[in-house]
Parts: sequence; structure tokens; C-alpha cells
Amino acid sequence: MTRPGWIAADWGSTHLRVWAMDGASVLDRAESEDGMGRLARDGFEPALLALVGGWLAGPTMPVVACGMVGARQGWIEAPYRAVPAFPLGAPVRVPGSDPRLAVHIVPGLEQKRPADVMRGEETQIAGFLTMNPGWDGVLCLPGTHSKWAEVSAGEVISFRTFMTGELFALLAQRSVLRHSIAPEGWDEPAFLDALAESMSRPEQLAARLFSLRAEDLLNQQPASVARARLSGFLIGAELAAARPYWLGRQLAVIGATATARPYAAALAAQGVPATLADPQRMTLAGLTAAWRTLKEPR
Amino acid sequence: MTRPGWIAADWGSTHLRVWAMDGASVLDRAESEDGMGRLARDGFEPALLALVGGWLAGPTMPVVACGMVGARQGWIEAPYRAVPAFPLGAPVRVPGSDPRLAVHIVPGLEQKRPADVMRGEETQIAGFLTMNPGWDGVLCLPGTHSKWAEVSAGEVISFRTFMTGELFALLAQRSVLRHSIAPEGWDEPAFLDALAESMSRPEQLAARLFSLRAEDLLNQQPASVARARLSGFLIGAELAAARPYWLGRQLAVIGATATARPYAAALAAQGVPATLADPQRMTLAGLTAAWRTLKEPR
Repeated sequence: MTRPGWIAADWGSTHLRVWAMDGASVLDRAESEDGMGRLARDGFEPALLALVGGWLAGPTMPVVACGMVGARQGWIEAPYRAVPAFPLGAPVRVPGSDPRLAVHIVPGLEQKRPADVMRGEETQIAGFLTMNPGWDGVLCLPGTHSKWAEVSAGEVISFRTFMTGELFALLAQRSVLRHSIAPEGWDEPAFLDALAESMSRPEQLAARLFSLRAEDLLNQQPASVARARLSGFLIGAELAAARPYWLGRQLAVIGATATARPYAAALAAQGVPATLADPQRMTLAGLTAAWRTLKEPR
Repeated sequence: MTRPGWIAADWGSTHLRVWAMDGASVLDRAESEDGMGRLARDGFEPALLALVGGWLAGPTMPVVACGMVGARQGWIEAPYRAVPAFPLGAPVRVPGSDPRLAVHIVPGLEQKRPADVMRGEETQIAGFLTMNPGWDGVLCLPGTHSKWAEVSAGEVISFRTFMTGELFALLAQRSVLRHSIAPEGWDEPAFLDALAESMSRPEQLAARLFSLRAEDLLNQQPASVARARLSGFLIGAELAAARPYWLGRQLAVIGATATARPYAAALAAQGVPATLADPQRMTLAGLTAAWRTLKEPR
């Protein structure tokens, strides 16, 4: 392999993903489960070296990382930047001990009111804007903590986080509903029905959830239907709350297929078309943009 | 001790509570963590005997039990009765092997549309009506799965379950919010503020939850404030969804003090006075009423 010019790292709570880069081209990739959540402060450098050690022959290697690695409990804190702001701020240099590495962490974004934070998604947003120059509108980034971000003239104007993915996982796996919800499987009409119910009366969410258990006990509702309905209830509640973000706006969804597809279907049911974008590609494009700033005088 | 005439049992998912009774008077009590959730079918009789064995000298002892012991995964299934219905149905005799015991289980209630079920609360409702003859109105039974039940002319007309207590526990202990929420502590003004926010725009629930994390990271919101606000958000969403139940109705809350107090405060903030009733007393009164039916010809 050509010797990489730099290394890109997507370092979240549960995973570390690295790419050996030559400019904007990927030469190699690797990943581990050494997410920020399981590392003490002195565990980050060894976790990184375990994946990239083989790429390091030669002069000091620039590494550009984004995600929870920059949280207060991360390697070093890369302080949040307040919106409105361009999504990418100057990466923060990590005072590392290994002379082969020059690690930089992209800072996250914060919003004062309503209080909100993001780490990692700002890099995806930057990547999306790099690939779609001049794009104005709203970006939806579904996931454990879904984000909706309003973007104008290259800046993130405002954003809002919804705990939809985490609520789905807790309810499906840890609540009484786990007895009634399939770990896999889907029923699209059931999803769209539940979505419509939830969007028309979102305040009924807390009452609807238990109905998934009761429909199983009383009417033998299939567990795959319950799974789709739970998703419909939660995404419907999110869309109802996020209405000011998507109503009448140009919209793109950045998310892995399995996560983004129900959002796109839900938005389509509201008559709102959404562009889909791959989150990994957006992250790489954003990290590449951040890497380019390292080489420019600031 | 006088030899008991019968034994009352409140047998839920996580606990078994028994009382040695002389008519409506309690002679003795005992409890264990042998809830339905940890027992296989052949484990119920030994779990009961472990607590009541010492009360059994003499002829066959009637036992009247309510709760999840009568679920499909319980000792035997005591089938649901459909509302509208008097809260107490004929207890179902358990074909037991120990000649010293004659165990009966109070059936739960079901509602076809919206699909809903209860087991145990019907006995509390029966007890409340025994102690308040002729009472019409709405009973709120807050807890892991809060119930709201409309009662008229001695019958349960309709009811609805909210997963408020379970959502609180999952979010406070198992979600990302656990880093920001105190295991104990309270802030009443914060609770009432969050309640009012949640009731005025209940569809924003999914967005409000993550703000508890962000307010900690950005503004060092105290963890006891976050705890009270989470409760306010969830109870506010429940009250917003349950509005048809409590608006302009005579209301009583059956719940342990720590659970019922925030509900009473929340209802008071809406200008709705609520009578408070102790759930254990209501359960005992309901089981006593069920025991009396055993002695009458049916």
C-alpha cells in the first residue's frame, strides 16, 4: 500500500473506525470496539495504535478524529463551539506521547437555548456541505440520538436532539414490551399506520406504548407488527415535535440505510421528499475537510 | 396469635406480600421477593408455603390472591374479564397439591379498544369502592404502569395504562441521562415548571428528554433538578394524554406516598383536587371483599 498521508478516525461511544488516507482517497481501513465509553484517559493512544500502528513508518502522521473522543470523558476535551457556526472548527491538538502521531480532534457544537449538544454529527454536516456546496435546508441525522440541523449559508443555525433510537432500544429490549416485540422483522403498513396515529395525536405516546403489550395479550398481535408499530410511534412523535424543521424545507437524511429508510418513508408519507446520504461517506468528507485546514495557516 | 380465618396475598411481578386475616382484621403479615417474575409454575406453592406455613395448623386455609400470579406465566391463568364490569370477578380456584391450602386468584380486567389490561389494580379499585360506597369518578393508580380508570355505578367503565414509571426508571438508570440524573433528591419548582412545559406542548417530549443531558453539560444543571424535571416531563405527558379522564371529574389517587405525591401536586397545579388513598389498604379491602364472595353461594 502507498504510505498514507494522514489518518481519519470516527471515534464514538462504542466504536473506533480508522481510515488510512491519501488526500481524499481511502487506502485502507480498520475498526475496533474501543469506543470512548470503555476507555480511561490513558487508554486512547494504545487503542489507536492497536489499529494504525502498521501504517506509521516514516515521519509524524497527522490523525484527524471526530466524535465522543473529544468529550469531557474522552481523550482530551475539544470544547463545543456555539451555533450559529460553520460546522467545522479548528481541530484541537492532543498532547500525545508517541512521536509518530499528531492527533487532532474536531470540536462539537453547542446551542444555548434550547440547550443542546452534538459531537460527530458536525463532521457529517461539514462533509455533506463539502459535497453539496451552497446547499441550504435541514439535515436529519437519525440514530441513537437523532439530530435535526438547520443549515444556511454554510452555517449550522440551530439544531435539536431526539432520543428516539435510545428509547426504541430501551423499550424493545429492556421494558415489559420486550415480551411482545420481535428482535427482527418489519411490517410496513403497520409502521405507516402507527406513524400516522402518532403524528396526529403525538401527546398520546405514553398511552400508546403499553397498547403494544395489550394487543399481544388480547389479540395475539405479531411481534414483527409490534416492532414496526413501536418504531412508528416513536418516529411519529419525533416528526411531530420536529415539524418546524421539516415543514416546507429542503431536506436531506444522513443515515445508514436501515436507520434512514423509516425516516424517509415517514417523511414521504407527509409529502416531503428527502435526499439520502451515507453517514460514513459524509464523515470521511468532513474529516478530509478538517485535515485540509491543518495544512493552511490559521 | 388467634388462628387466622383466611390469608390475603398481593402477588405481583417482583414481590409476594401476605397477611394472616381474621375477617377484615390483620393478625400478622410477611413478604418476600418471590414475585411471579422469578417463579416457574411449580415454584408458586413452595414460595407461598415459605411465608404462610406457620399459619396453617388446622383445617384447610382459604387464600385469596391478586396480581400477576394470575397471568398466563403465573401459577394458573385467571382469565381477564372485559369492561364494563364490576371490578371483582369470581376468584379462580387453583388446583393445588397441598391439602392445607385452598388458593383462589382474583381475575384481571381487559378492554378491547383501545386494547388494555390490568391485574391487581382491579382489586385496589374494588377495595376503594367498598370503602367509598356509591363513589363515581376517576381513579388514578400511579406506578410502573400507571392506570386511569373511569368508575360509575360500581363498575369500571374504561381504563388506560401509561408506562410512565417504567420510562422514568429506564431513562434515569439505563439511558445516557443516567450521567445527569440523581438517584435521589427533588426540586419541587423544577418539577412544576417541567410539568407545565410538558402539558402545554406534550408533543415535544422526545426533544425535551435530551435537554436534561445538555443542560448538565452546558449549564451544570444539578442532578436533583434533572430528576425532578424528568418526572415533570413524563407526568406532564401522561396528564396531557389522560386529560379526558381527569378534566371536570371527581378524582382519587391510589398510590404510595412517594409515587402519589407528584401526581397530586401536578393535578393541584391544574386546579384539580384529588383524594389520596393508600394502595395497601385498598388491596386488603379488595381481597377481603373477594374472600367474602367465596363464602356466598354463586
